[in-house]
Order: sequence, then C-alpha cells, then structure tokens
Amino acid sequence: MERIGVVTSGGDAPGMNAAIRAVVRIADSRGVEVVGFERGYEGLIANSCRQLGPRSVSGIIHLGGTILHTARCERFKTDEGLLEAAENLRNDDVGGLVVIGGDGSLAGALDLSRVCETPIVGVPASIDNDIYGTDETIGFDTAVNTAVSEVDKIRDTAISHERVFVVEVMGRERGFLALAIGLTVGAESILVPEVPFDIDVISNDIMENHRKGKKSAIIVAAEGVGDNRRLTEMIAEKTGFEVRLSILGYVQRGGNPTARSRLLASLFGEKAVRLLMDGRRSEVVSIQRNQIFSSDLEECCRSVKPLDESLLKLANELAV
Amino acid sequence: MERIGVVTSGGDAPGMNAAIRAVVRIADSRGVEVVGFERGYEGLIANSCRQLGPRSVSGIIHLGGTILHTARCERFKTDEGLLEAAENLRNDDVGGLVVIGGDGSLAGALDLSRVCETPIVGVPASIDNDIYGTDETIGFDTAVNTAVSEVDKIRDTAISHERVFVVEVMGRERGFLALAIGLTVGAESILVPEVPFDIDVISNDIMENHRKGKKSAIIVAAEGVGDNRRLTEMIAEKTGFEVRLSILGYVQRGGNPTARSRLLASLFGEKAVRLLMDGRRSEVVSIQRNQIFSSDLEECCRSVKPLDESLLKLANELAV
Amino acid sequence: MERIGVVTSGGDAPGMNAAIRAVVRIADSRGVEVVGFERGYEGLIANSCRQLGPRSVSGIIHLGGTILHTARCERFKTDEGLLEAAENLRNDDVGGLVVIGGDGSLAGALDLSRVCETPIVGVPASIDNDIYGTDETIGFDTAVNTAVSEVDKIRDTAISHERVFVVEVMGRERGFLALAIGLTVGAESILVPEVPFDIDVISNDIMENHRKGKKSAIIVAAEGVGDNRRLTEMIAEKTGFEVRLSILGYVQRGGNPTARSRLLASLFGEKAVRLLMDGRRSEVVSIQRNQIFSSDLEECCRSVKPLDESLLKLANELAV
Amino acid sequence: MERIGVVTSGGDAPGMNAAIRAVVRIADSRGVEVVGFERGYEGLIANSCRQLGPRSVSGIIHLGGTILHTARCERFKTDEGLLEAAENLRNDDVGGLVVIGGDGSLAGALDLSRVCETPIVGVPASIDNDIYGTDETIGFDTAVNTAVSEVDKIRDTAISHERVFVVEVMGRERGFLALAIGLTVGAESILVPEVPFDIDVISNDIMENHRKGKKSAIIVAAEGVGDNRRLTEMIAEKTGFEVRLSILGYVQRGGNPTARSRLLASLFGEKAVRLLMDGRRSEVVSIQRNQIFSSDLEECCRSVKPLDESLLKLANELAV
Repeated sequence: MERIGVVTSGGDAPGMNAAIRAVVRIADSRGVEVVGFERGYEGLIANSCRQLGPRSVSGIIHLGGTILHTARCERFKTDEGLLEAAENLRNDDVGGLVVIGGDGSLAGALDLSRVCETPIVGVPASIDNDIYGTDETIGFDTAVNTAVSEVDKIRDTAISHERVFVVEVMGRERGFLALAIGLTVGAESILVPEVPFDIDVISNDIMENHRKGKKSAIIVAAEGVGDNRRLTEMIAEKTGFEVRLSILGYVQRGGNPTARSRLLASLFGEKAVRLLMDGRRSEVVSIQRNQIFSSDLEECCRSVKPLDESLLKLANELAV
Repeated sequence: MERIGVVTSGGDAPGMNAAIRAVVRIADSRGVEVVGFERGYEGLIANSCRQLGPRSVSGIIHLGGTILHTARCERFKTDEGLLEAAENLRNDDVGGLVVIGGDGSLAGALDLSRVCETPIVGVPASIDNDIYGTDETIGFDTAVNTAVSEVDKIRDTAISHERVFVVEVMGRERGFLALAIGLTVGAESILVPEVPFDIDVISNDIMENHRKGKKSAIIVAAEGVGDNRRLTEMIAEKTGFEVRLSILGYVQRGGNPTARSRLLASLFGEKAVRLLMDGRRSEVVSIQRNQIFSSDLEECCRSVKPLDESLLKLANELAV
Repeated sequence: MERIGVVTSGGDAPGMNAAIRAVVRIADSRGVEVVGFERGYEGLIANSCRQLGPRSVSGIIHLGGTILHTARCERFKTDEGLLEAAENLRNDDVGGLVVIGGDGSLAGALDLSRVCETPIVGVPASIDNDIYGTDETIGFDTAVNTAVSEVDKIRDTAISHERVFVVEVMGRERGFLALAIGLTVGAESILVPEVPFDIDVISNDIMENHRKGKKSAIIVAAEGVGDNRRLTEMIAEKTGFEVRLSILGYVQRGGNPTARSRLLASLFGEKAVRLLMDGRRSEVVSIQRNQIFSSDLEECCRSVKPLDESLLKLANELAV
Repeated sequence: MERIGVVTSGGDAPGMNAAIRAVVRIADSRGVEVVGFERGYEGLIANSCRQLGPRSVSGIIHLGGTILHTARCERFKTDEGLLEAAENLRNDDVGGLVVIGGDGSLAGALDLSRVCETPIVGVPASIDNDIYGTDETIGFDTAVNTAVSEVDKIRDTAISHERVFVVEVMGRERGFLALAIGLTVGAESILVPEVPFDIDVISNDIMENHRKGKKSAIIVAAEGVGDNRRLTEMIAEKTGFEVRLSILGYVQRGGNPTARSRLLASLFGEKAVRLLMDGRRSEVVSIQRNQIFSSDLEECCRSVKPLDESLLKLANELAV
C-alpha cells in the first residue's frame, strides 16, 4: 500500500486532530503517503484533498475541531454520491481510507464500502459515546469534563440563590453524556432517554431535600429526554420553587481535548493504519476493557450500545 | 462604631466572597465587629444573621457565589419590609451597613436609607457592569473571561464546520458584557441594545466574508437585543448558510473569580468600611480611571452608565 | 456492622473527597455509621475523629485535597503506633476501616492489619498511578490533565522562542505520569526511570529535527530519572541550543478532580464499603480492564506495577 | 506612509498575537501595508520578514506566544547590528516600525531610533508589568491569572497537609507580579524586591497563626528577592514546620491571553498605528488611569516604575 486517505466527518469532536496526526505519522513511519479529504464526505465526492506529511500535523495534538474541516453531507446518502467518492478514491490510488467520525459517519462508511474496492476503517469520534462496540469514543472524555466544569460553576449560583437548576446536556438520543456528567457533578437527579422517570418523584425528592436542609439542586437532563423547558416549568409548578433551565450547548463540542481524548485518538489512529496495512477492511477501531481492538463495521452500525444503568443507580445512591 | 453589617443581594457575582472577606477583615483590624445578613434583603427583614470574624472568611477569596447567600426580595419593595429591616438594624446595634450587589440592590439600599438611621454604603457587584459611576463592577471581568473561553471553544466548531454562530451572552438590558466579549474573541459582529443594527447589513457582511474565504463567523449578541432565536433564523434565511444559536447562560455568573475581580472586591470592601468609619452614608464605592472613589448613592441609582461606542467601532475595524 | 472508619493518608490526590463522599453515603444508605479519622494515621493513633453523615460530605465532590486532612506519619511505622491505632479502632467500635491513599499508605494498612482485628480495605489514591493491581488510581487522570495544560502553555513559549524545554513532572520513582503526559502533549522525548536513555541520542534528535525545520522541542522527564537540572545543561552543551528547565511541581497534586477521577473515586468508595459489609478484609479496591475488582492487600504491597513500554514506543513514533 | 513594519521582541507575553492582529488590521483599514519581521531584532538585522494582510492574522487573537517568533538578540546591542537594521528598514521602504516587547526591547528600540530615520513606536508587552509610564502591559493580567489558578491548586495541598508553601513567581527584578498574585490568592506573606522583609517576622507570624488555628500558609515570593530555596529552608528551621518551595516557572509566560490582555493589545495596536500615521516617532503607547496615551520612548527607558506599596499594606491587612 502506497497511499491512504483520511477524512473527518459529521459533528466535530475534540481529539479528531490528534487522530489525524497519529494516522499521518504512523503511516509515514511505515512509508505510506497520506491524503486528507476536506469537509467530510463532501471532499470525497469533490475530490477535494491535500497531501499530509509529518510536518502538516505539527502543533495540532492539542487543538479542538479538525484541520480537515467536517460537514454533514446529504449527497453521500445517494448512490451517485457514493459512486463518485469510490471513483475518486480509485483514481487517487488511495489504497485504504480512514474515516474519523460518529455513528452517521460510520454508517456512511459502511454504505461506501459496499460500492467501493478501497478498504475502509472507521475510527469512532463523537462526544456522544453512542457507538456500539467501543467503551469510549474520541471526544467523550473532553465533553464530559467541559460540562462538569460548567455545572460546577452553575452550582455556585444554585447554592447562593438556593435554587433548582435543570442543566440540559448534549448526547442526541442517548444518555451517556448526561450520566457521566450527572454522576461526577453529584447531580440530585439524572434524566436519560433510556430510563423512564416520573416528574412527581423528582419534585417530591426536591421538596423532601429542602425540608432536610438541602435547598439547592442540580438536575442533569439529556437533550434526548424531550422538552426540558417544559420539564423545568413543571418542576417549578409542582415544587413551588424557583427552577431555572441552563442549556450547555455547543461549548461541549469544542475546546482542547483532554489527555484521555488525545491518548485514545493516538491509539485509534495507530490501530487504523495497522489494520489497513494488514489488509483488513470494513472494520471499526475500538477500546474494550482498556484494550484496543477492532470490530466489524456492519455490526457496529446495526447494533445499539447499552447504557450502564448500574451507574445511574450508583449516582442516585450517592446524591442523597 | 462597634458593629457593622454586611449583606449580598440580587444576582450573585464572582468576587462577592472576596468582598465579604475584605469587609470583615478590615473591620476587624479596626476593632469593629461584623454581622452578616443572610439571603439578601430577606435576611435584613427576618433578622437572619450571624457574627463574622476573620476566621469565618478563611478560604473563600477564590470561591464563586456568596457564603451569605443571596436572593431577590419582593417584600423589600414595600414600606413594611423596609421598616422592619431598619428596626432590625437599630435593634442589632448595627452602626453601618455594607450592601454588596447590583443596581436593583443599590436601589433597595437607597430606599432603605430613606427610612433608616443606619448609614449605608453600596459596593457594586454585578456581572453586567451596568452601574453608573464606576468603570467596573465586581464579577464583570470574571464573566467576560468565562464567556471568552466558551466562545473560543465554539469557534473550534464554527471553523471546523464552516458555520455561523450567534452566541447570546448575558447583560440584561445593557451591552457591556457583549461588547467586552465580542471585542476580545474577535467576533465578526457584536449586537448591543444601545446601538441599532441592521440584519441585512450583518447578513451581507457574512456573505461578503464568505466570498473572501472567511467561511465561519461568530456574532456575539447581548440578551437585551431581543429574540436571538428569531435573529438566528433570519440570518440563516438571508444568507442561506447554516446558522446556529448558542446561549451561554448561567455559567457566566459562577466560577472562581479572576484576579481582577478579587482585587476589585478587596479594594471595594476596604473602601466601604473606611467610608462608614468616616461617618459617610448613602454612598457607593467605585473605581474611576483606576482609582477608588465613592459617589452619591442616589445619583448612582438614577443615572444611566453610557456604553463606550468607540470600542464597538474598534471591534468592527478589527474584525475584517 | 454498625460503624466503619475512613481515613486519607499520605500525599493528597484530587478525588480523595469524592471517595470520602462515596464511602459515607453508601454506608449511610446501608444503615452503617461512618467516623472520619483526621490527618492520616496520626488521627488513628490520637483517636482524632468525627462522625460523618450524608450532609457532612455535601459540596465536596469537586474539591481537591481532603476534608479529613492527611499526613505522613512516622510513628505509624512503629509497633507502638500500630497498636495504639488498633486499640482505638476497637474502642471506637469501628467494624471496618477504609484507607484512602497511595502505596506508603497501603503498606501502613497492611502493617496495621497484622496487629488489628478490624478488617481493613484500601482505596488506591495517588497522582503517581504506581500501585500494583489497578490500572488507575484516584487523582492520576487529574494530575495528567493539569500537567498537560501546563505543557501546552510552555509550548507557546518554546515555539515563539524556538527553544528546547525540559519539563520535569512528578511520579516519584516511576514514569507513569511522565509517559501519559509526554504522549498526550506530543513531547519530542519522554524520559522515565524504567527505560534507559542516552543523552547523545536525545541531543542528536534535537539537532536533526532542527535541520528539518522543527526548531523547538519539549522533553518530558520524570522526577525519578535523576538530576534534571544537570540533564538540561548537558543537552544545552551538546546541542549548542538554548535549553530551559521547568519543574511543574505541586500544582500537579491539587485542583478540582477531573470527571474520571471523580468517577473512579465514587466506584472505589462504593466497592470498599461493599467489601467490608461482605466480611472481606485486607483487600484493595482496583480497576482492571475497566471493571471494579479487589485484590489482596499484601500482594498489592509487595508487587511492582509494570510500565506499558508499548506506549512509550508509540509516543516516539508519533513525535517525529 | 505606505508600509509599516512590526516586530515582537524579548520574552513572549500572552496577547502579543492580538497586538500584531490589531496593528495589521488597523493599518490595512487605513490603506497601509504591513511587513512582519521574524525572531525579534534578529529578523530586522537579517531582513527576515513577510507581508502580513488581514487574513494572515486570522484566528490568532486567542493564542499565546507570537506568530512572528521572538528572541533576545546580542548583535542588536552593537552599532553594526543597529545600522544593518536601519538600512534594511530604509531599503524595505518601511515608513514606521512598531516594536512589541518589554523593557529590553524598548531600550533596543530607543537605540535603533538614534541611528535610524524610520519612526519607531513601542508597545509595552511583558508579563512583568515593569515598564514606566503605563499602568499595565500586555500579558500581565494573563500571567497573574495563570499564577493565581496555580496557587489556588497548591492551596488544596497546603490545607490538606497543614503545610507552609513558598511559591516563587516571575517578575525578574520587580515585584508587580508577586504583589498582584499574592493579594488575590490571599497569601499570608508577599515578598517583593522593593520592600525589605524580615524572615524572623514572617516565621513568627506563621507560628502565631498556627496557634490561632491557621495551620497552613502561602508565601508568594518574587524571583527577584533572591534565593528562595534558601529562604524556604530558613523558614522551616525557624518555625519547625514542613515548608515546601514551588517555582511556578514558564507556565506564567504562556497560555491563551485573558480578555483584558487581548483588549489592551487591541487598544495598544490601534494606537501605535495611529501614532505612526500622525507622524509621531520615538514614543511608547501606554494606558494611564484607564485611558490610552503615549509617552516619550527615552523617558520610558530611563525611568523606573514605582510599586504601589499601599496594595502590599492592604494585602497584609487582609491576610490575617
């Protein structure tokens, strides 16, 4: 193999740059050239790419975002788009493609793999940590820590004003972020889409805590649980207390990656290149029980990662 | 004077604790006792207070929020409320009261001063920096820096996705926060309530920049300019680009105060005690042109602080 | 079991408070009282302790240090000290003791277990991550991230001045911290006590990089590799470049724990209480391959945790 | 004037990039070209420079260090060096030069101005804040806040271990940094070169505090006060307590600039261009009493900025 391609796709996640750096430098150390496609799958279709050498990825390990830019690409969901991408990869003599992205991007990679001779390997990068087959995704640890710092600040106001705060965090349809954040900020309640909850119970807990002297509360709610504005109003009505909503928003996607996100990105990037050089295709890099593995891309795309509900139980026990 | 009181009122601001610490320790060094009233003016009315000595304020200089708690108090807007507070101050032998808070709290202090023999001195603490007569309020520098860090993170995503972001910051009816944040993050536009703006102009600038190769943009908008969700949609319509709204929210109120907010709090706290010991009443501590002064409480309450529009002009020149 | 004790000992590590909180609240939820001994083993010997209820550990999950204070205790290395501690535990009706600390503290726990009927369970908390049997210790992730932020800052100066920096990090006799930090800051060289290195090779690499256009370099050196001041001078002599030493020092021990250190502390604290309630004794809580286990205290104390040298190799490949 | 030059010189300071950005964009908006000289005065002598347009300074307002690199240049202290630089400026048709740097760099600018027709304007950028005629320099606020965050972390360990820490901060021969840091971390003592101190008094205070129940202490010492390692040992001997030294070091120079450092850089950069366009020469931009001024370069170089000792007195009163 003389040349591989690398692309970042979908929502950006802190550590994507560290993964690009690892792909480029490991490939280079094995005598393999790297081309970077720009703006996600759009760049594959438009053949918008540039050569990446060891110096092109200097000074990026600590930067959020992605130097290759990223996008969500509707045209890649059509046969025409996929075929154009496949043809570009062939014409560019790209002997293998590393796709760094979340579950939508991996689904795109699977689609592409079906019409394309070029071997493809996925690298899970997503702040949501919702990809089957890997205990953790690149960017998750960073997003959790960013949110935890924010909630620590909001707690200052919650305590000073003896107020209840609902803090909405990201995670799309899943509760991995909310659970990790809620447990580590010591939230009084954690609401995730995977587990039904009862607003009456939450409201009663808040009132009961108030009687015991705990006059403020933090409720961490995944964006996927529904209308958190309405939820906030209902809790205010039921408890009679001041309840405020804070939506953390896009800050969770950005910022310098944590050490752990950088480490994971480095390990994943190295593994991805190794897989391609070993002639593997349609696989996804993963970390399972603290070891780097790979799993089948198709299985990864059609399976649903379970939430560890024992952590939710622990969080509830600890938040008395 | 043998005893003074201190109270924090209204929205919390980082550095309030540093101000309490300064009041308590300076008073103590002059042989004056301090009682802290809890939960803002509620505590004055309910006579909910506790003795504060030098050790009571140990280890708080770096903490956000306020150890005395705070609240907005409706009853303090009635004559009954004010008279109860005045009576408590007299019965507690409080020879002077330091009120640490924003413009609503200073207005309350003015009301109280009209029915109360106890001399009152105000200390401007507000993330909004909207208090007449002082160049800066306790907490403003912290809120600016917190927001700037957030926007720096959002810029990662903006650049990676080549997207436009509208970032709504606090500041209530005024644009001090938005201006300071927008200038120092290098925002492409800054929208403040004090200066009319034209969405067509903003949209055209974004499109013009896009043609010149600048594909992302950050628009910092004060919460006081109106419905920023609608604004975001309008810019998206007019430009045809992806435009996202991020509301920074309550994180701007919390967190450890910056060095500057702690310094200002220390200087203000010291000055407030000194004023009371000098027999002054109905004044507000202030910083003007880098020097500590005091000004008349009534003038402070009825005057409107002007926004420095030359800074807005500079920001626009720099954000090409 | 009606009552257990908890103590933090040795060097402080961020997350100790989160572990105390977990021990206290899990015990409480099982109907077990908790007493906290103060100032490490000194408090066991002096029987300096206080009752800890769920409210005593409110608002501490995010704080560095330890509310129980800690110390290194010489007297605990004598038979008299151990016997006094054992007697206090018996007299206080403490049915089990949780020791939160590093390897010295666990060695002390082992010594105590030999003269004491009270079952003892260890919780590994140390920024050094040098405890056998657990993949990670409480505080390690925080110390790594703190150091990484520092080195990111130093890199600004290194690049601006085109200078070489030797950054000394903690870790005592071991290289776990240096390796994790070096890999994730993209250090040009990582020096750990476990692996011999050659200053000529390092110096030649720096000169070779300089010729290739990479004019600054970061060398992360564990404190355990020896005299880093001398090392710095030698590299300066051999290369003829400006080389500066920066010793990160105590900041690595403090600060708010990361989400991961808080999570680990919560899981460890819960497991420790569970072990005691199951009648276990002389064990150490651990995380292995992302699962919570426990192992034998004696084995933990006499075995040496290996450094993962494949990570060092990866770091070198990535730092071209 | 058709073209100006800009150079960063001496020790790097956070905000230098924001100043370069301001110089370039303001000049551009006035129709003036900008060339950036690289590596400080070395670049002036070697005529190593590049054209800077508005896009060259995109995305740098928030970055520490300097994109133009910097150096200390011995050759610039010779007549030959100065004359070469002067000739290059003339040959490059540079109609004015902005020098961004600390006091050594301004002294160099003064020397150059004596042999050179090209008007020169200085912009004070230094973490030390030791430049006469300006209340604040670019980078000072950032360095203070960085150090304050560090000391806040060290305090965790100091309290947990009930230990005394001497924290050495930068500032070269002056105490501006130490004073600002010490006051805002609530240090028990602040040692600056400008004010004599007595180790016996400090040691007695520590012992006296210990008796009153304050068992830890932070002493912030400027690097300029002498051998802080020896000082630490002496305090340990005199008090009999554990005393540790922590040297904050180079982290104080780096990192993203605070909002205030960015604002100052923007205001200074704009003023510098305006001065050159107004035909001014041999001046230094400054902020005095919160207003932007300029003063004479020679006066700036030969005068010594006084330390505000009243702040030291306040710090001592507050640190009881």
